[in-house]
Amino acid sequence: MTSTQTIRAAVLGASGYTGADLIRLAARHPSIEITALIAKAHAGQPLAKVYPHFASLDLPALVTADEVDWDNVDVAFCGLPHGTAHNEIAKLPDSVKVVDMSADFRLRDLGTYAEWYGAEHGAPELAEGAVYGLTEHYRDAIAEARLVACPGCYPTAVLLALLPLSKSGLIAADGIIIDAKSGVSGAGRSLKQNILFSEAGEGLSPYGVGTHRHVPEIEQELGAAAGKSVTVNFTPHLVPMTRGELCTCYVQLADGTSADDVREGLAKAYAESPFVRVVEEGVIPATQHVRGSNYCHIGVFADRIPGRAIVISTIDNLVKGSAGQALQNFNLMYGLDETTALEQLPLFP
Amino acid sequence: MTSTQTIRAAVLGASGYTGADLIRLAARHPSIEITALIAKAHAGQPLAKVYPHFASLDLPALVTADEVDWDNVDVAFCGLPHGTAHNEIAKLPDSVKVVDMSADFRLRDLGTYAEWYGAEHGAPELAEGAVYGLTEHYRDAIAEARLVACPGCYPTAVLLALLPLSKSGLIAADGIIIDAKSGVSGAGRSLKQNILFSEAGEGLSPYGVGTHRHVPEIEQELGAAAGKSVTVNFTPHLVPMTRGELCTCYVQLADGTSADDVREGLAKAYAESPFVRVVEEGVIPATQHVRGSNYCHIGVFADRIPGRAIVISTIDNLVKGSAGQALQNFNLMYGLDETTALEQLPLFP
Amino acid sequence: MTSTQTIRAAVLGASGYTGADLIRLAARHPSIEITALIAKAHAGQPLAKVYPHFASLDLPALVTADEVDWDNVDVAFCGLPHGTAHNEIAKLPDSVKVVDMSADFRLRDLGTYAEWYGAEHGAPELAEGAVYGLTEHYRDAIAEARLVACPGCYPTAVLLALLPLSKSGLIAADGIIIDAKSGVSGAGRSLKQNILFSEAGEGLSPYGVGTHRHVPEIEQELGAAAGKSVTVNFTPHLVPMTRGELCTCYVQLADGTSADDVREGLAKAYAESPFVRVVEEGVIPATQHVRGSNYCHIGVFADRIPGRAIVISTIDNLVKGSAGQALQNFNLMYGLDETTALEQLPLFP
Amino acid sequence: MTSTQTIRAAVLGASGYTGADLIRLAARHPSIEITALIAKAHAGQPLAKVYPHFASLDLPALVTADEVDWDNVDVAFCGLPHGTAHNEIAKLPDSVKVVDMSADFRLRDLGTYAEWYGAEHGAPELAEGAVYGLTEHYRDAIAEARLVACPGCYPTAVLLALLPLSKSGLIAADGIIIDAKSGVSGAGRSLKQNILFSEAGEGLSPYGVGTHRHVPEIEQELGAAAGKSVTVNFTPHLVPMTRGELCTCYVQLADGTSADDVREGLAKAYAESPFVRVVEEGVIPATQHVRGSNYCHIGVFADRIPGRAIVISTIDNLVKGSAGQALQNFNLMYGLDETTALEQLPLFP
Repeated sequence: MTSTQTIRAAVLGASGYTGADLIRLAARHPSIEITALIAKAHAGQPLAKVYPHFASLDLPALVTADEVDWDNVDVAFCGLPHGTAHNEIAKLPDSVKVVDMSADFRLRDLGTYAEWYGAEHGAPELAEGAVYGLTEHYRDAIAEARLVACPGCYPTAVLLALLPLSKSGLIAADGIIIDAKSGVSGAGRSLKQNILFSEAGEGLSPYGVGTHRHVPEIEQELGAAAGKSVTVNFTPHLVPMTRGELCTCYVQLADGTSADDVREGLAKAYAESPFVRVVEEGVIPATQHVRGSNYCHIGVFADRIPGRAIVISTIDNLVKGSAGQALQNFNLMYGLDETTALEQLPLFP
Repeated sequence: MTSTQTIRAAVLGASGYTGADLIRLAARHPSIEITALIAKAHAGQPLAKVYPHFASLDLPALVTADEVDWDNVDVAFCGLPHGTAHNEIAKLPDSVKVVDMSADFRLRDLGTYAEWYGAEHGAPELAEGAVYGLTEHYRDAIAEARLVACPGCYPTAVLLALLPLSKSGLIAADGIIIDAKSGVSGAGRSLKQNILFSEAGEGLSPYGVGTHRHVPEIEQELGAAAGKSVTVNFTPHLVPMTRGELCTCYVQLADGTSADDVREGLAKAYAESPFVRVVEEGVIPATQHVRGSNYCHIGVFADRIPGRAIVISTIDNLVKGSAGQALQNFNLMYGLDETTALEQLPLFP
Repeated sequence: MTSTQTIRAAVLGASGYTGADLIRLAARHPSIEITALIAKAHAGQPLAKVYPHFASLDLPALVTADEVDWDNVDVAFCGLPHGTAHNEIAKLPDSVKVVDMSADFRLRDLGTYAEWYGAEHGAPELAEGAVYGLTEHYRDAIAEARLVACPGCYPTAVLLALLPLSKSGLIAADGIIIDAKSGVSGAGRSLKQNILFSEAGEGLSPYGVGTHRHVPEIEQELGAAAGKSVTVNFTPHLVPMTRGELCTCYVQLADGTSADDVREGLAKAYAESPFVRVVEEGVIPATQHVRGSNYCHIGVFADRIPGRAIVISTIDNLVKGSAGQALQNFNLMYGLDETTALEQLPLFP
Repeated sequence: MTSTQTIRAAVLGASGYTGADLIRLAARHPSIEITALIAKAHAGQPLAKVYPHFASLDLPALVTADEVDWDNVDVAFCGLPHGTAHNEIAKLPDSVKVVDMSADFRLRDLGTYAEWYGAEHGAPELAEGAVYGLTEHYRDAIAEARLVACPGCYPTAVLLALLPLSKSGLIAADGIIIDAKSGVSGAGRSLKQNILFSEAGEGLSPYGVGTHRHVPEIEQELGAAAGKSVTVNFTPHLVPMTRGELCTCYVQLADGTSADDVREGLAKAYAESPFVRVVEEGVIPATQHVRGSNYCHIGVFADRIPGRAIVISTIDNLVKGSAGQALQNFNLMYGLDETTALEQLPLFP
């Protein structure tokens, strides 16, 4: 593929936050032309009506999926909610590649899907061929896929931190405790009382204790790496910031392994991954250091409790946790440099 | 003691946040007359110069400790930094009772103090007689004490959650993991780069991983309860809010014990404690629900990992975590109703 | 009336923010017993279900207005939205006094009401007898009223700053420009996209430019004071904080008048008003200095443009701007000390 | 100049916020190679020590100005504080072009400089040749300049809104009232109590009323446009957000002129300016819509007071208000496309 090639992209769910962040990045991608923006509830409106910060872009108006000429689309990015995504994606012609940011194609076991999402999966055949889009771990499969299911934001942060450790046996598969913290944009743009400014501001609240739907994804991947069924503790907290996610993972070290070994193991695993950065000893990851960027920072610390370690990873939930990773996968699917259109540095302060 | 009695109070460290919050509450206490406000660096200034929100109060100007007529003082509340507090308190006449909000008299083992605070203790005799002021657990000793050392904000939240469980054997003493989150006011009013608005805002950052000075306090109390030496994981995080603290404690249940047992055990332990509230099943504590008040909310949840539970407790770090608990202890020391001047309901939204 | 008297109070609209802040304060009022909490959409639920920070209160469950035994109610505080309030208040028996925090009885000219609120007034006779509850300016009438219409939050801040100046002729009635800023709680608890944390956080946005419904209230009062029709510029802005309101008023001085004259005029006007504080020269009011309290701070500054001045006033929109002023009016209506249950100092930091 | 040309750049004041934001953008500029980072107090440290979010960049370590080989530098971006900048810039060899983000070369009248900045100017000859870098208004002069003095953040927002109106006579030069609001990053990274999170958070405070040093810049430019001396009201407020600036300008219309005329006049003035966007009627500018970008949004509204209008403009104070505009000027100075390296879309949410 040449660098001057143009790939025509549609965005399903263009009025949501993940859709919007995908548009923000894709609009500056040298090989992408956005040819369709789909947002059912806002069909007929210009994008700037829904997102005034896009007023400078010259993009097609919002439409319904039915109004799209799919012959004019090479790839669809999907930012629809789970439960809707699988049905809409199933309707797309085979000629259209799909980068899905919803939860619908992440779980390989559709029984597990039904259990956690409360409904049977609507497109089991498609699910079978879907590739889990944790970029740094599945590059080859992603490059070949028609449908890539991008991981949830939490699983991205957690798995980038723990998957290499689980694979290499540096940590025990059991007793993993993940204390997760997210900014409010992770809850999306739909109207809910708990994400009003006056409710979420100046406060911290755990939520979904023991029941968050990102659990099965994490267990699926850690289990596959460990070669056995894994049960984790995953406790998310809502933090009064818009963007950012940080997971503090408490793990049991394998016998004879130190926190330094873990840090080195991770550094080695990501030596060729431009967006994953294992910070040096003594540096503490913080969401501020990755805000607005596709980077993931990971730090490793010895626990005061002997034989244990703390692995902390942080991402921007809307970028590496969603739209950025989606675009990174897209780049792989089209043979482009993985970093294309993702080079923006973190926005600090 | 009669309800019309007037107790003359001095505040050491009146220009810090804990000093200020003590003034806020004490100024409305029916039995307290504030007769001296000590703030060395601001001596000579009116309090409203340092804290314009106190403009309506008719209080003495800020002075140095030397300028105070200590015969005119019955009790001193101390909001000085650790390392300064022990020296200043040591100079006070015996006739003055002391409610110390600093860290200097919390540790019974002065070797541990020297180890964590980097200097020998300056008033070992005083330290010997000090009572650890975790109100709900040491009411009798507090009532009799001359010097009460109020717990740190984090230890207050953690110990209210775990101490009854450790005492009663409902949880294992080992392997306790405490993921703690605090608002920025916990860092005080001194000028540090990481607590500038532009640095701490819109971001979450762990700090003091493995090294926070509240660790030995927690281990001292949990160890005493368990009857053996205890080592905990304590990992604090800075949250972009001013007030509030929430500790997510991951614990191993004793054999045959359930999360429900833990919840009941806690509820029973605090049945007579007006400020500690064990929330019912399904309610999740949040800092917003205690903001500006002396309440502590505690919730208990089953872990997905069998045999474990999650105990979440939340307080306002400046009230129950500092000035409020100090005043609660004061009330006990003077035979007043424990809730006097602390009845303010949480400020929500 | 004796200090031991108990006045039985109902709260209409107990699930909104103004209702909640009224409950927060009234629950600690020594003469108030809350006998009914009305919240149609939540009828049957305990208050703590809607507001977990009230878990410590022992109050009646939420009910519909029909379920209330009004013989058991002396006074009703109304926190309903405009348009609903007049109808619900009209149904109350004459024996019940009313302190209304809605907009429905603030405008004396019902034509103006219809024009700005888009519907005819539903209770014109009641409107006739209503007293505008700007406490510091209408104490006598409030004391005698059956129905007090508490001012909007913005009009409270603006009129406390400008009404004495308009009355005394220290400023011109024309060309008043009011640049107003409010925290997000002013928008209430109903679900609107622009008040989501991710939308309102880390940003500042003007709104309702030229069309905000608090305009006619301000013009009504300033016009009455000036003895002629007045048109003001009023431009509100949404600020990423929950509580607080600050109005920067740009005014033309009367000939020969200085900013110092204005400051002195205001200080004199509020010499006997415990909650209104004219700050001394050089002190700049800030919302932080009144947060959570019933205070209003007002500062006066010379403009660089000769002959003009800047008058800045700040309040907590939910306290002095709503529930606090309502309770202050209640105190007057029942012959109680104006400050009863409102003595809480500002919560800073 | 060819597109493959490399321009070697130094950054003076690399540890401040404006320096950092310049680095963020310049590091991705296709024609810039950063060859020196100067930060006296941090000399010897890697940039990532001071700004961990730059860990992925491969840049030279921080040095003092003396350590720089200036033969290796084509252009210097200066983010030093005023009072320091003029002295440091005066030491640079003539061969180095300068884009100054400090205040030192903005005022043409050095008497005015001395009056507002409290000291004589240290480099009067340089000041004489400096070009005021309000890009959209002085493109030709900027292209030819050796030293460009980028406007202050507030003047940028104000002048983009008002300069075309003042020039064309659509508004009166007198009686301009500017109510300005800024995020906290505008105060820089130096340690000051009022910008601590716990002080500035959850609050709004005016500051520098009548005395802010951006006044003379605004008056210089508006006066030049109007052809007479101009005195403005400029009242800034500190808003609890990190980035963003919004100026609400209250102006008197010229006889026979309407708000629509003003909007059209502005739209025409900026028809060829890619970063200045006059929003259509009914759209209200908000800082959120330009966050992290080089855009300026301007909206015009009729005032309720006849004959007046409200012009609202908003920018990101660190981008269009500082580093972005600096880079835009750099592009002009080197004959590059004005938008190079500034195409990032606003980061929303």
